[in-house]
Amino acid sequence: MNSDAWLDEIKWTDDGLVPAVAQDAGDGKVLMVAWMNRESLQLTVDEGVAVYWSRSRKKLWRKGEESGHQQMVREIRLDCDNDVVMLQVEQQGGIACHTGRRSCFYQRLEDGRWVAVDPVLKDPAAIYGKQ
Amino acid sequence: MNSDAWLDEIKWTDDGLVPAVAQDAGDGKVLMVAWMNRESLQLTVDEGVAVYWSRSRKKLWRKGEESGHQQMVREIRLDCDNDVVMLQVEQQGGIACHTGRRSCFYQRLEDGRWVAVDPVLKDPAAIYGKQ
Repeated sequence: MNSDAWLDEIKWTDDGLVPAVAQDAGDGKVLMVAWMNRESLQLTVDEGVAVYWSRSRKKLWRKGEESGHQQMVREIRLDCDNDVVMLQVEQQGGIACHTGRRSCFYQRLEDGRWVAVDPVLKDPAAIYGKQ
Repeated sequence: MNSDAWLDEIKWTDDGLVPAVAQDAGDGKVLMVAWMNRESLQLTVDEGVAVYWSRSRKKLWRKGEESGHQQMVREIRLDCDNDVVMLQVEQQGGIACHTGRRSCFYQRLEDGRWVAVDPVLKDPAAIYGKQ
């Protein structure tokens, strides 16, 4: 078995991507879902920190490179269809979302409306652009 | 605000789909990731049980219609990019995966190989086709 066999087993999209769920290894909070390509997943394994593929910027996205909110990867799993990856991570700074919230899933459906129900832990202006 | 505004806020793919993460509302286990279209998400809200869109069968997929392993939906969330949905569910039968495992994420990356690490709780032959 060559060393890329585990990557070949993944069912990549036509764009060469796979969705990746990041879950807090401590308490199970689902932090975010982003996308990976082969290179970013390989880098994630090699470096032990989550590296995604930014579809909007069309480039590798080293999570936390600006914010310092890196995700230390404790475990990587694949689902039964081989088309979704899940990471168990330790979230540095306790903030995964660019809005300054712990999780990106902070909008809850309430009576037919999306309501932001989780607190902003840190002002994004204080997270970004003040290096 | 019309009653479909919350659906309009979702950034659907070109195919009219959005990925949906199902998490156990009790202990936070991530059970599966599947896809929804507008109709399936509306039905999920209306019926209180998870209804997905099967990309392979190109039809609505009422989770548990054969297996009895329905997912009772306790909460629906949307992420910061409005392009991923998350459901908090009570998993009937304690089995979400068609392989008879609790979660679809039963393959763990170990030394460059995907290894099935979670037990089969019920033989799929006993789950399906023996109505």
